[in-house]
Amino acid sequence: MPKKIRLGILGGGGDSLIGVLHRVASHINDNYQIVSAVFNPDFEQSLAFARQIDVPTNRIYKDFDTMVEEEMKLPPEQRVQVCSIQTPNFLHFPMAKKLLDNGFHVICEKPMTTTLQEAKILQEAHRKSGTVFVLTHTYTGYPMVREMREMIKAGALGKIHKVDASYYQGWINPVIHDPEVRKTVWRLDPKKAGISSCMGDIGVHAFNLIEYTTGLKINSVLCDFNYLYDDNQMDVDGTVLIRMGKHIKGLIRSSQVATGEENALTINIYGEKAGFRWEQENPNFLYMTSDTEALKVLKPGHSYNSKLSLAGTKLPPGHPEGIFDSMANIYLGAARAIRGEEYNDGEFPTMLDGVRGMNFIEATVNSHKGGNIWVDLE
Amino acid sequence: MPKKIRLGILGGGGDSLIGVLHRVASHINDNYQIVSAVFNPDFEQSLAFARQIDVPTNRIYKDFDTMVEEEMKLPPEQRVQVCSIQTPNFLHFPMAKKLLDNGFHVICEKPMTTTLQEAKILQEAHRKSGTVFVLTHTYTGYPMVREMREMIKAGALGKIHKVDASYYQGWINPVIHDPEVRKTVWRLDPKKAGISSCMGDIGVHAFNLIEYTTGLKINSVLCDFNYLYDDNQMDVDGTVLIRMGKHIKGLIRSSQVATGEENALTINIYGEKAGFRWEQENPNFLYMTSDTEALKVLKPGHSYNSKLSLAGTKLPPGHPEGIFDSMANIYLGAARAIRGEEYNDGEFPTMLDGVRGMNFIEATVNSHKGGNIWVDLE
Amino acid sequence: MPKKIRLGILGGGGDSLIGVLHRVASHINDNYQIVSAVFNPDFEQSLAFARQIDVPTNRIYKDFDTMVEEEMKLPPEQRVQVCSIQTPNFLHFPMAKKLLDNGFHVICEKPMTTTLQEAKILQEAHRKSGTVFVLTHTYTGYPMVREMREMIKAGALGKIHKVDASYYQGWINPVIHDPEVRKTVWRLDPKKAGISSCMGDIGVHAFNLIEYTTGLKINSVLCDFNYLYDDNQMDVDGTVLIRMGKHIKGLIRSSQVATGEENALTINIYGEKAGFRWEQENPNFLYMTSDTEALKVLKPGHSYNSKLSLAGTKLPPGHPEGIFDSMANIYLGAARAIRGEEYNDGEFPTMLDGVRGMNFIEATVNSHKGGNIWVDLE
Amino acid sequence: MPKKIRLGILGGGGDSLIGVLHRVASHINDNYQIVSAVFNPDFEQSLAFARQIDVPTNRIYKDFDTMVEEEMKLPPEQRVQVCSIQTPNFLHFPMAKKLLDNGFHVICEKPMTTTLQEAKILQEAHRKSGTVFVLTHTYTGYPMVREMREMIKAGALGKIHKVDASYYQGWINPVIHDPEVRKTVWRLDPKKAGISSCMGDIGVHAFNLIEYTTGLKINSVLCDFNYLYDDNQMDVDGTVLIRMGKHIKGLIRSSQVATGEENALTINIYGEKAGFRWEQENPNFLYMTSDTEALKVLKPGHSYNSKLSLAGTKLPPGHPEGIFDSMANIYLGAARAIRGEEYNDGEFPTMLDGVRGMNFIEATVNSHKGGNIWVDLE
Repeated sequence: MPKKIRLGILGGGGDSLIGVLHRVASHINDNYQIVSAVFNPDFEQSLAFARQIDVPTNRIYKDFDTMVEEEMKLPPEQRVQVCSIQTPNFLHFPMAKKLLDNGFHVICEKPMTTTLQEAKILQEAHRKSGTVFVLTHTYTGYPMVREMREMIKAGALGKIHKVDASYYQGWINPVIHDPEVRKTVWRLDPKKAGISSCMGDIGVHAFNLIEYTTGLKINSVLCDFNYLYDDNQMDVDGTVLIRMGKHIKGLIRSSQVATGEENALTINIYGEKAGFRWEQENPNFLYMTSDTEALKVLKPGHSYNSKLSLAGTKLPPGHPEGIFDSMANIYLGAARAIRGEEYNDGEFPTMLDGVRGMNFIEATVNSHKGGNIWVDLE
Repeated sequence: MPKKIRLGILGGGGDSLIGVLHRVASHINDNYQIVSAVFNPDFEQSLAFARQIDVPTNRIYKDFDTMVEEEMKLPPEQRVQVCSIQTPNFLHFPMAKKLLDNGFHVICEKPMTTTLQEAKILQEAHRKSGTVFVLTHTYTGYPMVREMREMIKAGALGKIHKVDASYYQGWINPVIHDPEVRKTVWRLDPKKAGISSCMGDIGVHAFNLIEYTTGLKINSVLCDFNYLYDDNQMDVDGTVLIRMGKHIKGLIRSSQVATGEENALTINIYGEKAGFRWEQENPNFLYMTSDTEALKVLKPGHSYNSKLSLAGTKLPPGHPEGIFDSMANIYLGAARAIRGEEYNDGEFPTMLDGVRGMNFIEATVNSHKGGNIWVDLE
Repeated sequence: MPKKIRLGILGGGGDSLIGVLHRVASHINDNYQIVSAVFNPDFEQSLAFARQIDVPTNRIYKDFDTMVEEEMKLPPEQRVQVCSIQTPNFLHFPMAKKLLDNGFHVICEKPMTTTLQEAKILQEAHRKSGTVFVLTHTYTGYPMVREMREMIKAGALGKIHKVDASYYQGWINPVIHDPEVRKTVWRLDPKKAGISSCMGDIGVHAFNLIEYTTGLKINSVLCDFNYLYDDNQMDVDGTVLIRMGKHIKGLIRSSQVATGEENALTINIYGEKAGFRWEQENPNFLYMTSDTEALKVLKPGHSYNSKLSLAGTKLPPGHPEGIFDSMANIYLGAARAIRGEEYNDGEFPTMLDGVRGMNFIEATVNSHKGGNIWVDLE
Repeated sequence: MPKKIRLGILGGGGDSLIGVLHRVASHINDNYQIVSAVFNPDFEQSLAFARQIDVPTNRIYKDFDTMVEEEMKLPPEQRVQVCSIQTPNFLHFPMAKKLLDNGFHVICEKPMTTTLQEAKILQEAHRKSGTVFVLTHTYTGYPMVREMREMIKAGALGKIHKVDASYYQGWINPVIHDPEVRKTVWRLDPKKAGISSCMGDIGVHAFNLIEYTTGLKINSVLCDFNYLYDDNQMDVDGTVLIRMGKHIKGLIRSSQVATGEENALTINIYGEKAGFRWEQENPNFLYMTSDTEALKVLKPGHSYNSKLSLAGTKLPPGHPEGIFDSMANIYLGAARAIRGEEYNDGEFPTMLDGVRGMNFIEATVNSHKGGNIWVDLE
């Protein structure tokens, strides 16, 4: 009796980077086997890719609807158990909705939907389905991110009073300054990219990281975007003032024109007793700051680490694990949930994270467009 | 014929840290000799301190007014040439005003005054006096801060579109959480500390650093403060959204409750072609970021450095110079100006920096108190 | 027709860390499928582990000899193509020898053998076999290690005159200081651990890294070990002076009692024109030093990277890949070689690296035991 | 009654960097006044430099012997109390000898002498003189170096078993590769530079740092130099294996051709309980490593610092003090000793450090020239 979970893939074919990330992550802990897929809208390319990565072609389908239809005909013990959605953003919602309605578990790339309204509909569908829904906010899979969450929960920082998170990239910089070139970038086309670029694509990761690590909820936001050019309609840079509770404040900084930054997701959390600093590009180093003691640098795989953190470490200290391993930790948590095994809160981002993320993005846009006003989250 | 400049000191006696900083800086390049002082409001202590640091006691005066009166009686070639004001903030204005009116050069600690109005009066007095006025924004004396200024001027970053500066400290954290203790902290008493704590004391350094390095002027601000407790009247944390020109935006982050931070003044500047990152606690490392080339780390004392930067480096590469040397560079520039020698723009902060600083502080307070509205700077 | 390479596994079952590393690495680029194994000397445990990771049990064998015998009976198109040896060190030689003699490709953990003599026998067997032999010096799979190799080959450093490599760990420290405890550590038992502990287990990685990156050969060594206690027979710390060519010198530092060090493999290479510094615990940062220009920090995934480096990067800049990905790059190179596809020199360590490694280890032991004398490598 | 110590200067005139360092350091704590000097062998230049830095010219002498003769004629309360020797190395010995013989206190640049024999003669002269002798191993003045010493003394590391110190520079690299140019470098001329270049000039600092921080004595050395070219007679690179006690080993690495290194003096100390890492180019950060606890980063100016460390910190945490401040700390200790005040062991390097330094340098040369043999220190 094979123990691997039967995984279906939607999107992620060819040279897709997100495809590589999900596929590798699904392999890492020996929990999943790809049995079915629509890798590509073009059926022939989908088949070719299946052959390339040695997935049997008999359950490669011509499109998503066919896949659902055919899989439903199979007996439950052969049927795909969980589908991983790696398609363009606007397809996340209809695919996830139909999958949940048909009783499939879902692993979904972020942003979960394109609007808050869709997110709420999906939330309701999920509630009815009784299945597992996992949103791949990849960065929550890093051991030291989990360590922050567990240590904060255990009171290591005391009452938190300030959070400062940022996600800076520079990649739009080389394509935005020429008026002809910038017309051709799909990320800068509101029809393709949705209501927000820097906040929707990356700022929301910083938002999620704050709520994941601190356990606090962001109540309201005030946002200022920068579009850089009059003829550019998408935010490529923005700062969000946030309020989390009485006298708990902070900010989210997000940019795609932070020249030379690669993938600089960082967080600083300050509490009455101590503080944390973490940087995604050196993910195995967690800095704990204190007003009275020496700075501490925590690393993964040690006996001093939390259970949740250790669950995401495969090798002894000093063997750097990276982004694939972080995503693999989320797949591992998903596997436990799908199999009905016990798992810890925090092993993967949930439907609620998806809803809140869409709420955040819409709130920042409304704040900026309203003239930099405070907008409450629901 | 002695060549050293005759220096008078106001304040800075006993264990005063700012006194140590100024005194050491004045010695470093062999340019100044302390000939006169009011180190302390208590005359006996002033005399004792003079003896302790081996300054002749014949021109130690019982108070500031006496000092001005007596020095004016001396022939110009014996009279104090420049006074360094290191007193509590509220005395900066009256002292500087009287000194300028009597034709003395002035080196003044920041904040220059306690209100923008005073700053403007001082500006006018300075204009009339024809003397040298130096505001000790110490951090502008660091070689790599100067390097940023010169490289930006030379076009190394291209057009700048974003600036993100922060000044985070944690020292108020240990004294603010107890309601009894926080009543006793003079920094939290508006009568003693002025209209702003975190923005007035440290945020204004970040403001000055932005204008010094980029050559841009900050036009308007939107500010949100955190007071942490209902009975605390002073901002101990705040974020300022800034606008510098069309499509040029950024932010200033300032905190005195950033737990475990020591003196974390940092700046990130992003331009079309490249970016800069600099951190005061590692002041000899300047990071230059690019979307297409390897990150560069520039250090002082190299042949590739600018003239202005090299003027502030005394030893070969790899010999870390620190905060005393930074302040000494400002004293060096002041000496050149006082002697009527040629000096470079950027060798010391000027009256205009002082006026703008007060303008900034008042604008942030008005923004926050106005409900997080945009406030223009003059 | 499945394209995946049929992989056999020897060892690596249960909680084996090296097993996880190899298994994950073999999955990452979709090139291998485990079809056969002896995971554990205990047949039942071997079967149980196969079920756990969902490998069909029909080709799980009771021991290595049976595996070879049975696999040889299978038609070539079903037979295991390559075996990955992850057993205790003393088994590497007999297993690899028999596999090569029977025409299997081999992926082998280091040290390749336990003596130089065995290594030479294996080298001869490999020469006769015409198969692919890959030694898993994992660290050569890191993109920035490859970048050093390619840039040095292209002349970026000019003539090299000094190399300083170290591999410092601290893990023996907690178990060596108690006389009773240290008797029980198998790494400190010459019968189980071979002729050298720190040099054989980790110093040889530093040795390999030097030869891999510089293209130079180490000609002779002078070594001093530290055993820490009179009743300890294994080196737990040692320094090796090395000579590589006329006026080209350097050193290898290796320790298992470098308190608090985790897995600190580092290398500094100095040439006439520039230098390199790389640290395994931050593997995505390569520092290029110069006497006349700013320090450069190179990272993976950029257009300025070499072809060999880019072949080992799966995601865009700023997405940190780690040790699993490094090993996966070696498996990727092995896959190309096994399939007869074109591959670059440097994609995986070879038989020659294995022979030289054993030569190095024996030479250091002979140098130390001879009274810290120079010993030539062959 | 002036309290400043009457300081005489030998050498250090004009653009001399060592002159700047000593002069600034002597000023920093308001303890010294320059009253007499031979800044330059050329009397006119000496006078001109005195005028430039505003030292009265009446006690600027034409040469050293005249200076001693004339100062001895002055009444003790006017006479120079301490002389700071900043001349070329070969003059250190005769000057220091004569000064000690005439009852002057001495502050002397390193290396103390040019041979061990001279060092011993000086040691005897010092013993007879009853005066204060201070050797300016500048780096021992850094607060975090002192912190290591005090924490080790207090047992923080447990028994030490390994030390690894290095001093890497690259500055000879640009001048050594051209056969014509290298003939002209005085550092490469044995007549001018003494018996060793890299070990005598910088390796000895690493040696001193080991003995200063650990309290251990280095008993014997085995050394290998690199001259790079057959026609170069001076070591520009070398590695020294060291033995400090039974089972206590380590190494000193020194280079002037470590391309792109600026002034990379570093030390790693490993003990049974914990380890230290410190780097001169980031002197305010001290790393404490442990096998079981998080890495700690200690900084100066904190309540957790030792008394000796705090005595060398003038400003609050986060205000980086640098090399001038380090030297100033040594001058401060010297002032206490000269005034007969109480001072702590470790406030300045002593005659004994000078003797041991010469012993070390000679031993390394003898080891290398003897064919990399072990040479005992006395």
